[in-house]
Amino acid sequence: MTDHPFRDRAAIVGVGATPYSKNSGVSTLTLALRAISAAVADAGLTIHDLDGVACHRVGDSVNASVVAEALGLHDVHFFLDQFGGGSTSHAIVGAAAMAVVTGQADHVVCWRSVNARSEFRMGGTGRAAPDAIEFQYQTPYWYATPPQQFAMQARAYLETYGVGGEDLGRVAITQRRHAQASERAMMRAPLSMDDYLAARMISRPLRLFDFCLETDGAAALIVTSAEQARDAPNPPALIRAAAAGSLVNPQPGIQFPVVLREDITTLPAKPTADTLYRRAGLGPADVDVAQLYDCFTITVLLQLEDFGFCAKGEGGSFVSSGAIELGGSLPINTGGGHLSEGYIHGMNHIVEGVRQVRGTSSSQVEGAETCLVTNNPLPPGAALILRRDS
Amino acid sequence: MTDHPFRDRAAIVGVGATPYSKNSGVSTLTLALRAISAAVADAGLTIHDLDGVACHRVGDSVNASVVAEALGLHDVHFFLDQFGGGSTSHAIVGAAAMAVVTGQADHVVCWRSVNARSEFRMGGTGRAAPDAIEFQYQTPYWYATPPQQFAMQARAYLETYGVGGEDLGRVAITQRRHAQASERAMMRAPLSMDDYLAARMISRPLRLFDFCLETDGAAALIVTSAEQARDAPNPPALIRAAAAGSLVNPQPGIQFPVVLREDITTLPAKPTADTLYRRAGLGPADVDVAQLYDCFTITVLLQLEDFGFCAKGEGGSFVSSGAIELGGSLPINTGGGHLSEGYIHGMNHIVEGVRQVRGTSSSQVEGAETCLVTNNPLPPGAALILRRDS
Repeated sequence: MTDHPFRDRAAIVGVGATPYSKNSGVSTLTLALRAISAAVADAGLTIHDLDGVACHRVGDSVNASVVAEALGLHDVHFFLDQFGGGSTSHAIVGAAAMAVVTGQADHVVCWRSVNARSEFRMGGTGRAAPDAIEFQYQTPYWYATPPQQFAMQARAYLETYGVGGEDLGRVAITQRRHAQASERAMMRAPLSMDDYLAARMISRPLRLFDFCLETDGAAALIVTSAEQARDAPNPPALIRAAAAGSLVNPQPGIQFPVVLREDITTLPAKPTADTLYRRAGLGPADVDVAQLYDCFTITVLLQLEDFGFCAKGEGGSFVSSGAIELGGSLPINTGGGHLSEGYIHGMNHIVEGVRQVRGTSSSQVEGAETCLVTNNPLPPGAALILRRDS
Repeated sequence: MTDHPFRDRAAIVGVGATPYSKNSGVSTLTLALRAISAAVADAGLTIHDLDGVACHRVGDSVNASVVAEALGLHDVHFFLDQFGGGSTSHAIVGAAAMAVVTGQADHVVCWRSVNARSEFRMGGTGRAAPDAIEFQYQTPYWYATPPQQFAMQARAYLETYGVGGEDLGRVAITQRRHAQASERAMMRAPLSMDDYLAARMISRPLRLFDFCLETDGAAALIVTSAEQARDAPNPPALIRAAAAGSLVNPQPGIQFPVVLREDITTLPAKPTADTLYRRAGLGPADVDVAQLYDCFTITVLLQLEDFGFCAKGEGGSFVSSGAIELGGSLPINTGGGHLSEGYIHGMNHIVEGVRQVRGTSSSQVEGAETCLVTNNPLPPGAALILRRDS
């Protein structure tokens, strides 16, 4: 392996998204095409400039081949249709970068399109899933759905480190505040600590506002070479580094291996952080703003620790110090994130990361040059560092 | 794009497979682990040398993350879990090559594992498939399953070019002959033209022996850099070129866009051939042996034409001339292929391609240096050229 496979050699040149809602009223194909069209326009390209396609899904969305056909693409040189929900947006963007760096394609469009409220709600246990061979062992213990699984992790974390539920609340409240500045956000009503604590407990210690939103919508972005990106109408977001795939203390057959590890208060994909920083030649101190995967508030605390922004067990006091707010030392999830903007499984985080690097976020971090975008709650984790072209 | 993104810079250093059968009696996880273990041993490596994993599936097999965990891998740097059945083995090997060439991983294991006879039979129409939005338009016309779809293509081809059913039969008979030399092949009984013609018609003009086999089994291989491959115990098969993703005359929403094109007697993924040869700096005349995707006999004829081994419409006379037999100008599917060896969705074709380049096939083409391995019946097509290290 090399230290930095393609540092700053690929870039994101266009981003686009549909509105995020509880009921799009259209198919995931239509959503994908709308987001892609927006990204293409933002990049100053036409549809026929696209020669690579990359998406991810869990059988819940239109397949990549149908989208490519509907776009009318005649000459596709990179094709990626990856299994995976939330854990995969960052990985496919990394793969797209690899494709343009090796000269396999010039412009790869990456997207995620879901009707995850109106059509295919995630996390149920009723569907037969050949994927999920471990469910047979988990279900008898009420350890089947993501809320149950992340609740166990949250509870262990809170008890081990003496962290209170209010610290989880601060994540939700901060992100809601960021969302209030954005027209795209689904949840913009002010959220107080009293509101947070009064909301119903769903899976102890996780309350209603610890949960991401069930969302209909699509987000898309276009990856090209850094060289070509410099001709684009908007400032490129250079892909400083990408990392994906780490596993820690793996246990056979466990999709969410949080309970069978030595320490369930650390994310199973933590090593991705080390790989990412090594490839970027940067460390936590170089990061100006971060979009941290927030399927639940607890995962934000763990990523703050695992990516080195505070010591182990100090995630709670870090967020409650105000560090993660606009004006703090590390503003996070500046579009409102999955808790308040919408849940497009990470792709909307990457789009927001591009906005920060461009300087166009509705909650812009002044002078932001370097944005960390992570998804490490589940293996295989994946993460990106985006950087302004200097 | 560049002319040749990574010519000869990656190689296949190990191959492995389970027995192919109608009932493995074990899970797709166990099958995958057995094939991977065999490939690792063949490469002179240990499991912990693996730092990349790549598989493909259509929800019919164990997911890549579970396999990585079961292998006990702690440090995975490239992770690919691609949607796709037969169209994808060649694409994931190309992606693995890209990963090692960019220095993201040192040893990527690629596999396909299926219980496609005993557990998840392909091609049915009974399953709800969110993927397959086009089925609602096709089913009323009896155009739903792969046999119905390829039968229409076969019929158009036979009628347009005055080709007889015996020419399809020659493909089946030739491959059966090759299979007779291999202990791995599921179907080794001699097959005569009388046997072929007497077998039942399943979807006119396709008879029983025009069909690939429903198979339980797994095949795996290991991709590394050409440099590291030269230290391996067995001769490496250099990946001279890889191509994937082309579409021709696409029509929105049609998974098998064979009927809505100007010419359904040409494969929709034909442009992959042009890209592949350009990247390889080679042409049909340089190919010594080929493994052509044979979900049905008809696709062999079309690939012979689309990859330039004979003129359009001459596939039938080409195969009946004996050219595709051992000793002919272009021996194909030398392990018996999907029609007689087993149907591991292309991965067993690539494994056989490696054997030819090593000189160890049970139907070895004398002096074979260059092997074409294709899968172009459906978009996105994909193909590889493997080459002996000289």
